[in-house]
Parts: sequence; structure tokens; C-alpha cells
Amino acid sequence: MSSIKSSLIDPDGGSLVDLVVPEAQRAVKASEAESLPKVKLTKIDFEWVHVISEGWANPLKGFMRENEYLQSLHFNSLKMEDGSVVNMSLPIVLAIDDDAKQTIGSSPDVALLGPNQDLVAILRRVEIYKHNKEERIARTWGTVAPGLPYVEEVITPAGNWLIGGDLEVLKPIKYNDGLDHYRLSPQQLRKEFDRRQADAVFAFQLRNPVHNGHALLMNDTRRRLLEMGYKNPILLLHPLGGYTKADDVPLDVRMEQHSKVLEDGVLDPETTIVAIFPSPMHYAGPTEVQWHAKARINAGANFYIVGRDPAGMGHPTEKRDLYDPDHGKKVLSMAPGLEKLNILPFKVAAYDTVEKKMAFFDPSRAKDFLFISGTKMRTFARTGENPPDGFMCPSGWQVLVKYYESLQAEEEVSQKSAVLSS
Amino acid sequence: MSSIKSSLIDPDGGSLVDLVVPEAQRAVKASEAESLPKVKLTKIDFEWVHVISEGWANPLKGFMRENEYLQSLHFNSLKMEDGSVVNMSLPIVLAIDDDAKQTIGSSPDVALLGPNQDLVAILRRVEIYKHNKEERIARTWGTVAPGLPYVEEVITPAGNWLIGGDLEVLKPIKYNDGLDHYRLSPQQLRKEFDRRQADAVFAFQLRNPVHNGHALLMNDTRRRLLEMGYKNPILLLHPLGGYTKADDVPLDVRMEQHSKVLEDGVLDPETTIVAIFPSPMHYAGPTEVQWHAKARINAGANFYIVGRDPAGMGHPTEKRDLYDPDHGKKVLSMAPGLEKLNILPFKVAAYDTVEKKMAFFDPSRAKDFLFISGTKMRTFARTGENPPDGFMCPSGWQVLVKYYESLQAEEEVSQKSAVLSS
Repeated sequence: MSSIKSSLIDPDGGSLVDLVVPEAQRAVKASEAESLPKVKLTKIDFEWVHVISEGWANPLKGFMRENEYLQSLHFNSLKMEDGSVVNMSLPIVLAIDDDAKQTIGSSPDVALLGPNQDLVAILRRVEIYKHNKEERIARTWGTVAPGLPYVEEVITPAGNWLIGGDLEVLKPIKYNDGLDHYRLSPQQLRKEFDRRQADAVFAFQLRNPVHNGHALLMNDTRRRLLEMGYKNPILLLHPLGGYTKADDVPLDVRMEQHSKVLEDGVLDPETTIVAIFPSPMHYAGPTEVQWHAKARINAGANFYIVGRDPAGMGHPTEKRDLYDPDHGKKVLSMAPGLEKLNILPFKVAAYDTVEKKMAFFDPSRAKDFLFISGTKMRTFARTGENPPDGFMCPSGWQVLVKYYESLQAEEEVSQKSAVLSS
Repeated sequence: MSSIKSSLIDPDGGSLVDLVVPEAQRAVKASEAESLPKVKLTKIDFEWVHVISEGWANPLKGFMRENEYLQSLHFNSLKMEDGSVVNMSLPIVLAIDDDAKQTIGSSPDVALLGPNQDLVAILRRVEIYKHNKEERIARTWGTVAPGLPYVEEVITPAGNWLIGGDLEVLKPIKYNDGLDHYRLSPQQLRKEFDRRQADAVFAFQLRNPVHNGHALLMNDTRRRLLEMGYKNPILLLHPLGGYTKADDVPLDVRMEQHSKVLEDGVLDPETTIVAIFPSPMHYAGPTEVQWHAKARINAGANFYIVGRDPAGMGHPTEKRDLYDPDHGKKVLSMAPGLEKLNILPFKVAAYDTVEKKMAFFDPSRAKDFLFISGTKMRTFARTGENPPDGFMCPSGWQVLVKYYESLQAEEEVSQKSAVLSS
């Protein structure tokens, strides 16, 4: 990288951490890890190790110790030694239970075991502190209502202690699911942006299939950036690849759908990079959207597209959105440490029934527009009904139809076997 | 003030707001207020008008608009136009219900009616936005458990809208309860500190009677400041005077007790100022202690004494402290906007049964020390039992005994009348 002149935005904290042990030292570190007290990682803990190891959470060097945890929880930011502030809105923490705490005792270092029981990392100079789940949940989500996906999946079953420390990851994190080539690290992305001589990088975070409204928005953003004088704006189409809730479309299906969208020319492959953002999803609205934006700074993006109700969901127990749909972009625009990032609020796109295509909503002829929510889209795909022409490129749509057909087939099989075994 | 050379710490935002309308304009403003849509203030809203009007919440000029509310809720701080940051950990907001919202309509200004139906203030250029109580409570307290005093007293009964705007207070706020002479504004306090030529001001926030452990701590702090080279450190003994929960000792009793402590010479009147901090109490632990500290900066204090579990209480539904007792001082020491304030953590004082006085706890002879909690102290006073010699000056103790006797007498009367009326 050093030979290429880069005009990319600096990562938070100045330079990217790289917490993967150099190849020459791996054998020694691995045998040291063998001798240490061991902590088992869940699948989602493992995703966080991945996130931290590549510098998405820069300048974080490991799971948070208490002083970082408290700053994240109370201020959504960390103060650096030089007095500067970086955004850090989600607690990135590792929970352990009483038994693990006892096993660790006063050992300064522990080894982390991956979901397949392989040694993944060493956590150095550990600090163990209380995991007050109620407070963590309340301050992160602004509610403690039962039914928050990340809470039920991760926090409720977790132990009552958090363990912070510096990570040394024994080898690069791989999932061997056929998608690792999409998992570009911040350093790899920066290299690619430089190779393409990007003078602006705009990131689009998503966890849903790309429809033509998204595409309109991304293409329009590029147009605006060109108008602003940038010569070569590059789009980072950046689907989230970690934990998502059960009714979201799975990552492999989404990646296939995204590749169809590019093949189809809806987005221009010359000016688009599709990669996976390895973070798990919190569904924590205004708190989480800061994390989504901050991590993309570390990958070199200086423009961030934010829509209605980012990282939001329905309230788990009340008939309303959990978050005010406008709070995400408001909070993002005021968030400490994100001043250097240009926030580009969404224009609302909807299906124009007259022009028969996705278009920016025109309130003067509101009745011509059809809003097709994620839920509605999934219903179309599930019931085999086609969405209106021009909603999504047909090849992309077929990926979804195929997925929902396979789901239905599975359900029928499991219903039949339930009948047989009853 | 301008003629006196002041070495006091600057208020947040540079200069103190003074939101009380100058006397010459009061008649005109009052008659304008008559013509405006009216919003009724609760007793606690009124306390907040007082707090804001004198600059305790500097640089806030009125009840928060949404952008201030969101920053307070998510970041515990506000970013100023020049990029500087001030601490602002509690949402200082005014709630209205649907009817009031409708009455206000699109009026840019509203008049505020005090608890006695008198015109108190005008709120200018108002902005009305949603009052998501659940989110406000969760993010402020880190729990939504039923039984939080401020929540039950203030938030639950409040309307579903918040109204922000700039305050013009029609005359200085008075309570006419015989204690107004203790209610010194930040400006009055600064004047007094300057008059005494203070070169350090250390603030002690409290909502309990002063016992000799507190006194030891305050006197020891003064000694440390002298050792640090300050020539004339002044103590601001600053009991909170707004809303407190029902089982706290009422303000008038506490003020009488505090004055006995000074009469008795336990604290030196020459180097101590006793005044009332007009804020209501949230019991929101680490979030609230920032407010307590920040407000004292505005009054000229550059040192702040913080103890175990500041602004904490028992968890309302679980058998534990609501907050980790150490989080208050940790959060305070890292809080954005409070860098200029010197935080002085408490040493723990307890009753030394050998020396028969309050002393700093010596862990090497732990068994000699008796911890007398606020609850225990109240039990002593209620049951008429004397605390150990040297716990509190006798004249101060008598104030408490008298108060609890009067409480008991009241209870007996009300029990008797309950019997008679049953």
C-alpha cells in the first residue's frame, strides 16, 4: 500500500490495527495458547473476533475492558490518550460464566476456542468485570422488552462476567462457506479503492436484497458526487454478514442476489465493490447505525448513505416501530467521532405505478406511488407472486423465489415428518 | 462582578445565561404572556425552570429541543457550534399532553403557568416532538423496572410530547418557604467566591444530613488542597433542594441540620458556603452524577467530591444496588465536557469503635470499624436510639430526632383518624 498515493479517509485512531499473528510466530503462539486457560467462543463471539482482528472497530485492540465498555455504554465514544474522540456506540464485549471465571483465576492471558474447538486467539492482560445485562440492554436498545433478537440470541444466555483484553489472533478468520472471497478486510478494501484511484468512497450498508429503489439511490448518489466535483466515486455495496435474525434473508442468498444485480448492469461493476461486512447485527437503531458508519470509515469510506429507520425493527411487544424512523440519521449526524464522515440521507424511493419503475417519491402525486416494504417483498417471493415490473431485476428476483420455494419445501418435509413421528 | 479579578473556572459555554426578564420589560412581557397559549407546569417542571433560568444547565437557554434531547440521551453531552463539547447527561425537557399540543397549535411561543397558576415564563420558538418514555427511561436509568422515584413521580404521569424552546422567565423564581436566602444562583455564588478570594472551590453534593464522616472528608479535602498549594480553598456545601423521594429527609430539616453543623464548628463557616442546589433528583446514578458535577462548574467549582454510588439507590425490584457503586466515579472521570473539573474520589469513612469517632477506614483493622448507612442512621433517629458518640454533632442529631418524632406523631394521628373514620 505504501507505494500508492492514497487520498482515503484515515481510520479512527490513525492507523489500522492488524491483530493476526505473523505467520512466522504462529506455531509458538499456538503452543502457548494450548497451555493457557481456555474460553469457548460462540459463533457470534467468533464473528466479533473477526471484526476486531481486521480493524473494523479501530482503534480497539481487543474485547473491551471496563473503561471502554463504560464509555461506549454512556457516551457512544472513546476518548483517546491524545484527547481525540472516536465513535464506539456498541459494547464489543466477551461474556464468560462463573465457571470460566474460576478456571481463569488470576491468569493474565487466556486462549479463545472457536466454535469448532480450534484455538483461535489469545486474549492478553485480561480484565474481568461484571456483566450487568439489564443495564447493557437498556442503554444499548432503549428498551428491555422481551423479543430483541440479539438479546435473546446472545446476551440472555451469556455469563454474568465480561472479559476484556488485547487480541492476538492465531490465523486469519475464515468461514469456509464459499463466501470468504467476499470478506475483504478494511486493509484489502483500502488497497482496492486505491487501485481504482477512488477519490470518494460511498458505503451502502444493507441486510436485504437490493431492489431497483436501492439501485436508483446508489446511482443517484454517484451522480451527486460527480456533480460535487469528484472524478471517481466508488460504491462500497456492503451487506452485513454476521448474525441476523431468523426471518432475514440468509447471507448466501443475498450474495447471489447481489451478484445478479451487478451482472444485470443495474449497478456498474466498474465503480462498485461488493464485499461482506463481518459484523453481527444488533437491531439497535440509532445506537447501531453509528457502528455501521464508523466501521466503514475504517474501511476507507468517507460518505455514508443512511435511510429511514436504519438498523430498526418493529417494537417486540408493541404495535409500533421500536425507534423513531428519523432518529437514526439525526443521531448519526450529531455523533461524536463521526464529524469527518459525510452523511448522505436517503431520499425515499417507491414504485411509481405510472412510470412503472422505482422512482424518488413525489409527494405532489402521492397516490401514484406504491411502497413495497421488506415484509411485502418477502410475502411476494414466498407466495410466488411477481412484484410489479421494474421493482427488481428478474434474475435477482428469481434468486429470492428459489430461496422461498426451498424454505417452503423444507417446511413441508418437516411438517410431514412431524406427522409421521407423532 | 466585572471589577473583581476572578480566577474561577469558566461556565460551560463561556458565559452564564441569565434568562430572567429585566425588570423594566416585565410588565410588557407579562401582558404578552397573557395572550399566548398556556402550558401548566408541575412543581418539578417549575424547579427545572428555576434551574435553567439561573444557568445551572449552562449553556442551555430553555427546555431541550429534539436535537439537544437526542444528544443528551445518546452522548450525555452537547456539541456547540464551535465544535467544543459540554456535558449534558440528563434530558431537561418539558412534557405536554395531547390537549396542550392541540391548544398550542402552530403558535411559535407559549406561556408557562406555575403550580399556583401564575404566569412564570414564556417559551419561545417552540418545537414539539414525541416523548418516547420507554426509551428515555431505559437510556437514562439503564433499567425500566417499576419503582424508580422520578419516573413514577414525573415521567409516567406526563404527556406523550415534549416541548422545547428558549425561556424568558418573568421574574426570579422564589419558593417563599423560608429557605430562599439559601438559594444562591451560580452568579451569586461566583460573586461570593470572588469576594472571599477563593483560589479553589470544592463542591460537595448531598441530599442527606451531614455526619462527622462527611465533615472529616470535607476538612481533609481542604487540607489536601492547601498541600497542593492553594491558598484559600472554599467549600461549597451544596444540598440538593428539588424533588427527592418520600423517605429522604426533607429539605427544611436538612438545612436546619446543616446550620447546626456549622454553628457547632464541625465545618468552618469562614471557608464554607452553604447553599441550595435547586435541581430535582433523578436517582440515575452514573448518568446523574455528571449533571451534579456539571452544574457545579457553572457555579464556579473546579473540584468535585464524589463518593461511593453517587445518585444511586437500591434496585427497585431486585435485591442489589441499581448501579455498580464504582461506576459513578469512573464514568465521571471519563465524561465528555468534564475534563476541566478535578474529580476527588471519596475515601471511605466509617465509625472507628476504638477511637470513638468517624475516621477513614483502615482495612488492616477492619473489625474496629462500623459502617452506618443512611438507612441505619434514619432507623436510629426514628427509634430514638442514639448513634455512637462522635457520629454526628449532638445539636445536628437533635434536629433529626425531632423530625422523626414529628413524623411518628403524624402517623399516629392519621392511624387514629383512620380508625375513627372506618
